[in-house]
Formats: sequence, C-alpha cells, structure tokens
Amino acid sequence: MIVALAGGVGGAKLAHGLYRVLPPHALTVIINTADDFMLFGLHISPDSDTVMYTLAGIANPQTGWGIAGDTFATLEMLRRYGLDTWFLLGDRDFATHIRRTELLRAGLPLSMVIATLARALGVQATLLPMCNEPVATLVDTPAGRLEFQEYFVHRHHTDPVQGVTFAGIHEARVPDAVAAAIASADAIIFCPSNPIVSIGPILAVPGMRDLIRRARAPRVAVSPIVAGRALRGPADHMLASLGYDVSPFGVAELYRDLLQGMVIDSADADQERRIARLGIQVLVTRTIMENEADRQRLAQEVLAFSRQLAHER
Amino acid sequence: MIVALAGGVGGAKLAHGLYRVLPPHALTVIINTADDFMLFGLHISPDSDTVMYTLAGIANPQTGWGIAGDTFATLEMLRRYGLDTWFLLGDRDFATHIRRTELLRAGLPLSMVIATLARALGVQATLLPMCNEPVATLVDTPAGRLEFQEYFVHRHHTDPVQGVTFAGIHEARVPDAVAAAIASADAIIFCPSNPIVSIGPILAVPGMRDLIRRARAPRVAVSPIVAGRALRGPADHMLASLGYDVSPFGVAELYRDLLQGMVIDSADADQERRIARLGIQVLVTRTIMENEADRQRLAQEVLAFSRQLAHER
Repeated sequence: MIVALAGGVGGAKLAHGLYRVLPPHALTVIINTADDFMLFGLHISPDSDTVMYTLAGIANPQTGWGIAGDTFATLEMLRRYGLDTWFLLGDRDFATHIRRTELLRAGLPLSMVIATLARALGVQATLLPMCNEPVATLVDTPAGRLEFQEYFVHRHHTDPVQGVTFAGIHEARVPDAVAAAIASADAIIFCPSNPIVSIGPILAVPGMRDLIRRARAPRVAVSPIVAGRALRGPADHMLASLGYDVSPFGVAELYRDLLQGMVIDSADADQERRIARLGIQVLVTRTIMENEADRQRLAQEVLAFSRQLAHER
Repeated sequence: MIVALAGGVGGAKLAHGLYRVLPPHALTVIINTADDFMLFGLHISPDSDTVMYTLAGIANPQTGWGIAGDTFATLEMLRRYGLDTWFLLGDRDFATHIRRTELLRAGLPLSMVIATLARALGVQATLLPMCNEPVATLVDTPAGRLEFQEYFVHRHHTDPVQGVTFAGIHEARVPDAVAAAIASADAIIFCPSNPIVSIGPILAVPGMRDLIRRARAPRVAVSPIVAGRALRGPADHMLASLGYDVSPFGVAELYRDLLQGMVIDSADADQERRIARLGIQVLVTRTIMENEADRQRLAQEVLAFSRQLAHER
C-alpha cells in the first residue's frame, strides 16, 4: 500500500503515475481540501476533482484541471444572470459539483462523497480528503486577506503573500481512513504540490504530522521547485515572501521532521549535500512530467527509492 | 394592466402573444408552481421557466420547454454518476436551476427569485408564482400516488388519473403582489393550460378564487380543449377520468363561478349555446397557436373580447 499526499495539478500527475505503475487498489491519495469553496451555491473541491479526473483519465490535458473536451454553456448562462464567472467550470464539471453538493446536503461526509464520485468514474485508487470538516486557506496580502481562489484564480496569484491561514483547521480531524492508510503504508510520497497551500494544509490537520512521523513507512517528497522556480502556480513566490529558500532545500526544510528521502531535479543536483545535511537522503533525477511516460518513470523511481530507504532502516 | 394565469407550454404561448401586443410592463403572469420539485438537489420550476424562456424569446421552439439550442453535457455526466436522467435538463437550463437554488437557499422568496432571473433575461412583464410556499401536485393512479413529474414526464402521463392532490396547498398564501395585480387588473385571462393541474393549483391557493371573483376586471378563459382533445399533455384524459366533459363546456364548468367570457375554437362552435347557458359569453375563433403570428392574433382577440365584456358590465 502506497500513500500519496497531493494538491492539484502537479500532485495529480505523480499520483497518476503511481496509479499506473501500481496495482490499482494499492494507491491511497490524501488530498488537500483547504481550497474547497462555495460557488453558485455549489461545493467546489478543486484538488480532489483534479486528482479524480486525472486518475479517471478524463482530465483536460491542456489545463491539467477540468474535464477534457468540456464545454461552457452553463457558465455562459450564469454570466447572463449577472454572476462573476472568473472561476471556469465546464458543463461536465458542473455535474460533479451538483452531485457532490447534493450528497453533502444529504449529510454524507466529504470522504464518502469523493469515494462515490470516484468509483462512478472508474477510479480504483482510494481518494481521501485530508479531513471532513471545512477548512479554508486565507492569504494575507497588501490588498488584505483574500480567500484562496480569489488570490489564486481571480487575481492570478500576483499579490505578494504575507501570510497564510487555514481557517477551521483546529476543528479538523484526521479521518480514520487516513490514519489507517498512513499507519499501514509501505511508502508515503509527498507529491510535487505547493508545500505552503497544498501539502501545508494536509500537514496542518491536528495530529497529521505525528501520524506521518510515527508511520513505519519511509517518507519521500518530490520537490515542486526546480531550478528556483515552481513548475506551475505560486509556490516560488510564496516560499520567497514567507522567508524560505526557493529551492528543493527550502521545501526540505518545511518537511524536515517528516522525511527520509527527497527527490530533486537534475537541475538542482548542487543541492544534494545541503539537503543531506538535514538527515534526508536525496535522489537526483528528471522530475519534470511532460507526458504520461514521464509520470510513470518518475513514479517507478520514487517507489524504488522508497524501497531502498525501507531496506536501510 | 392585464393578468394572465398560466401553466406550461400552452399557457406560455398565449402569455407570449399578450406580451407582444401589450406595452411590455402591462402584463402580469401568475404561474403554477405546484409542478416544482427537487432534482439533483436543485429546485426545478418547470412552468415558471417555460413562461420566462418563452417571454425572453429563448424557448426551444420544437419542445416549447427548455432553451433553444441547449446542449446536454451536464446531464450526460450526471448519468455517468449513476443518476436517473429522464427529466431532460440542458446545460443552459441548469444555470437557471443552480441560480434559483442558490437564491432560495439564501432565503429569498420564490417570487423575488423569479423576478431576478426574468429581469436578467430581459423580460419586462411581471412573472409571479401563485404562492411562495412549496406545493406539490400528486396524482393518484392505479399504480399508486405519483409525484407529478413522475406521472407526467417519466411515465409519459399514461396512467389513468383517479385523483389529484395539491400537497401543502392549505399552508399556501396568495402573495401580496398577486392579490394587488388581480385587484387592479383590466382583464384576467385564463391561458389555455391544463385546468386540473396547471390552472387548478393556482385557483386552489386559499383565497385565490375569491380574489378573482371580486376583481373588477372581466375574466376570460381560453379553452385548452379543442375538438375533444388537449392540444398537448394529459388534460383530456384527466378531465375524462375525473368525470368532466372533455370539451370547452367541461372546462367552463370548472371555472363557472369565475368567468364572464370563454374563448373556444371554431371546431367547437356547437358548444357555444351550452356554455352560454352557464352565464358565460363565448367568443368562437381559431385558438390553435402554431406560430408567433397566431399567438399575437389570439391575444388581440382575447383582449378585444375582454374590453367588450368590460363595457357590457
């Protein structure tokens, strides 16, 4: 059993690689839900949908989010009703939000809702939200405190980030299924997602860091920073403005109490020694996933690295 | 000021004719909401949408309901999630249901929700629900008591109808705006909608019949039955199985305490004397509306007939 922690597009790519190279039931993905928000009265869960669509093989390959070939008639009509439509939701995607909202309103916990949707799309991996309680990432900027999607999508993550808060995180609980998956895992993989606002909220659920630290499995992170830049999204700006090194080393520092291993890109080979000094072993390889073959190759390498770390313990 | 009582497609056609021939703000349509129901967690209001789309000029001309040129990607995806999709909702149509549901959940009464949506679509007539409380038409059949859409859409209104109940009607109230429109109207037109399940619920709201009876305006109904048949829908079977004459006379009997005038089709000219014996004056003309010119011509004739009745009082 392999556990992956993932946020959106970058995390979903590696999760997809793992899903392809492992027996389908052997993968559990623990997903950031602190980006979840209400829009048009519907519960939107961006990261869990991105992981679900990617593993189901229906993700839009151009954007990484949304559904391939989706159309936008519903959104256009909502615009006609005078609504802000800067958050792009396709017609097929709306079905997911409609169904999720219906099931949540009927009283199902988010974990059961995600499981129900994923099963219907043929996903055999176990997708688990980091918690069932609502948590909201808030971003402090010179323009004020912004809801995450306002900062990320509407304002194109251009505001300097002065701080990040996960509202509601103290009321969140690690779901039993998440605790069980971590305890029984053979490896725990931190996907190359934003360490502040994607992996960060997962680790901020009370008790989560302890569970991961006490797990018998080796823990390996794949750096989302390559050559001083985030492959997508604002991780680089966020790390810099919050005072972290914009490098695999900076990411390793955030995870240092949790990791045995870190996978960094060949472009960052010079960081190996610095990270090793934190007590973290390093695998240097090509980490950029441009196609499905890249995803599977990286997944294989990460798994082999984890097995090697397990043997050494 | 003209008030029209309307259900779905047939009623919407005459309401559209009235809207076109009157100054746009001079028309108020009081709409049946007893067909409203929840689907996929969304509040669907079939008759108010049909009237709204028709007056906005965006109704699907083939079906009479839904939006012209709409697509069905959301519904297809909901089918993939394992849901029953016999009630056809287009992608643009979904926007209406999403927005309505959001506004209702925010606490707005249905009347304000309908007004908000209609205004956004450029409809200058006043569209009013018969009440703001939930009312549900239930149809008793040999197969048991069916929800209206189950009977009407899913089972194609083929079950014999043994009775009709409007659940919740005793808790319903005539909205103030409806009472005011009726009191100040220059004519009250009963559109050619199903007298049992479209106009029936409107008249069943406690106090509605009294308000209409006490109105200073002449009341004129257009028969939805022509030559012994309903132009669409199950009005003919319903009238027969509930023991009414399947004819303009049968419809006139249902409305007899309310009407001064009745408009019947030339095909039913032989009914004129029978209806006149109920104390109702009759206009015989072509009532079938095959195109927009028909709608406007019939609207003009109904208005002229109403004016004539007003002068005679």
